[in-house]
Amino acid sequence: MTAGKRYASSTDVARLAGVSQSAVSRTFTPGGSVSAETRRKVMAAADALGFRPSIIPQIMLTNRSGLVAVIVGGLRNAFYGAVLERFATRLRDAGHQVLLVPVESDYTLDTVLEELRSYRVDAIVSGLAVLSQEVADALSAFRIPIVSCNTSVTSDWVASVDSDNRGAGRAAADWLHRCGGTRFAFLAGPEESPASRDRLDGFRAGLAALGLEPPRVINGDYTYDSGQAAVSRLFADGPADAMFCANDLVALGAMDRIRNGLGLRIPEDVMVIGYDDIPSAAWESYRLSTFDQDPEGLVVQALDLVREMSEQGPARGRVRVVEARFIPRGSTRQPMA
Amino acid sequence: MTAGKRYASSTDVARLAGVSQSAVSRTFTPGGSVSAETRRKVMAAADALGFRPSIIPQIMLTNRSGLVAVIVGGLRNAFYGAVLERFATRLRDAGHQVLLVPVESDYTLDTVLEELRSYRVDAIVSGLAVLSQEVADALSAFRIPIVSCNTSVTSDWVASVDSDNRGAGRAAADWLHRCGGTRFAFLAGPEESPASRDRLDGFRAGLAALGLEPPRVINGDYTYDSGQAAVSRLFADGPADAMFCANDLVALGAMDRIRNGLGLRIPEDVMVIGYDDIPSAAWESYRLSTFDQDPEGLVVQALDLVREMSEQGPARGRVRVVEARFIPRGSTRQPMA
Repeated sequence: MTAGKRYASSTDVARLAGVSQSAVSRTFTPGGSVSAETRRKVMAAADALGFRPSIIPQIMLTNRSGLVAVIVGGLRNAFYGAVLERFATRLRDAGHQVLLVPVESDYTLDTVLEELRSYRVDAIVSGLAVLSQEVADALSAFRIPIVSCNTSVTSDWVASVDSDNRGAGRAAADWLHRCGGTRFAFLAGPEESPASRDRLDGFRAGLAALGLEPPRVINGDYTYDSGQAAVSRLFADGPADAMFCANDLVALGAMDRIRNGLGLRIPEDVMVIGYDDIPSAAWESYRLSTFDQDPEGLVVQALDLVREMSEQGPARGRVRVVEARFIPRGSTRQPMA
Repeated sequence: MTAGKRYASSTDVARLAGVSQSAVSRTFTPGGSVSAETRRKVMAAADALGFRPSIIPQIMLTNRSGLVAVIVGGLRNAFYGAVLERFATRLRDAGHQVLLVPVESDYTLDTVLEELRSYRVDAIVSGLAVLSQEVADALSAFRIPIVSCNTSVTSDWVASVDSDNRGAGRAAADWLHRCGGTRFAFLAGPEESPASRDRLDGFRAGLAALGLEPPRVINGDYTYDSGQAAVSRLFADGPADAMFCANDLVALGAMDRIRNGLGLRIPEDVMVIGYDDIPSAAWESYRLSTFDQDPEGLVVQALDLVREMSEQGPARGRVRVVEARFIPRGSTRQPMA
């Protein structure tokens, strides 16, 4: 067997077993009619040749490949790694295979879709947000169930599953206020990130409801380095004592700059809250107060949406929101009585 | 179009365009002979129906799916996330699709392989080590190029790509000795991990070559928590001042326990070296001296092995070793003159 022909065919098996190709096919069809003797010969030949029936003819017949594409960006953030692992494990438990598609931004989503369609994928789950109604409608034209995270636009074949970013933003405002914060700041992710924007909207709404000034906002890009730089820029314009960050990496970078760069204490001088609850948030050097996005809940809802779309077909407005749970740790003070 | 029949067929296109199915097929075959007018009609109908030719018949004809399976465990470790992202990006750049297969241990590798074969995968890259010659031989029976990381056994269809774990262990011994370390310890990963074992072997060999006592060894499991626990167990039996850890997560847990639990200073009282150079190793709270595994080099070598195996067929002893580069930071002192 050469490298060029590595998969034995049913013809190879039939020849070695001295039976018809149809007999080989029946042997590997559940419930197929074949004599015990023929089955024995076929299985012996299949073992000898390392034959395994292909799923490909079945895909041709049914247009169901068992393949689900998972689109991700930024696996260096431990949160996405953890979510991806859960998705992949659950999809495989349900009998699917996972096509991994790393992309840089959603602008390439429709290009990628062309490829995925040639593999007849059954569904697509995207960790990247779909950013506009126009893109959502264009994606819908492909008639494949698409579930996108952190997306507020939906269309016939595009559904959304989302962490309760606004609710968490409000909760962060409440908590920081109750713990005695008076000068609020938001360290943002990329400007085009709907999740970062929604967290800020909630934070603003929460402060407004308490009759407080809006937060100062510093833009960034969801990384540790961006958190460090944001703190320097923020304090160059005046102090802050209560900070909500668009994700944990930003918050961890902020904490290091606050302590090492500014020489301030956490939480006595400055309180910091993050988002994601990545493993390093719990490390003793940080003890970061943050929001647990409930990755398990996100995965369960996303897969339930895939199931619903596959069974019921197109419909607008499919949105699921998963509650985020606040985890107070040492980077915030205790609420005042 | 219902959910059950979401992919338009070439028959659908032919009917709408008012041409033969063969004309549709020729239109989508590069260099296929078809009149400009027919092509126009076919493309208009294809657009209207959202038709895209399937790659499936090509897979049947060639037994080449374009699919490469990547087997991973433990995406919560940022190192594996970063490597996976590189693999996936490079494979896609080369025109492949990536099947992601998360598994718990190598004991399930052959079960997983049965499934992957039914999809006619072109090759398998495994982040998990193959642990015994017996398993390597069994995997070879599948006649699919398999490249496994951190594996010392190979067989006809199983090749290995590996960080220079032994060389790094020797370098760690040298460095810690030159910086004044006298009581050495190794905080290990899981006992069955070949990478952890090889790092320890190199560390032992390096210390022996310097005429020094062998290190004390504490077993663990590659996590932050295990690094913390290991330090407590180590110091319960007596102090150490020069520590090499099986990976960065273990080292970061060790650092936090050394400082917060034991009240010792790093690097003045205890020096710590890790392995992987994950992003958090560079964070200001740690400044961990560590080894950069050169993930890009690992990926390039792995993919080159896949190419070589595909082109040349079976052969034993295919092993590539990628040098690890030491990155001194603040968790070790300066070498003495």
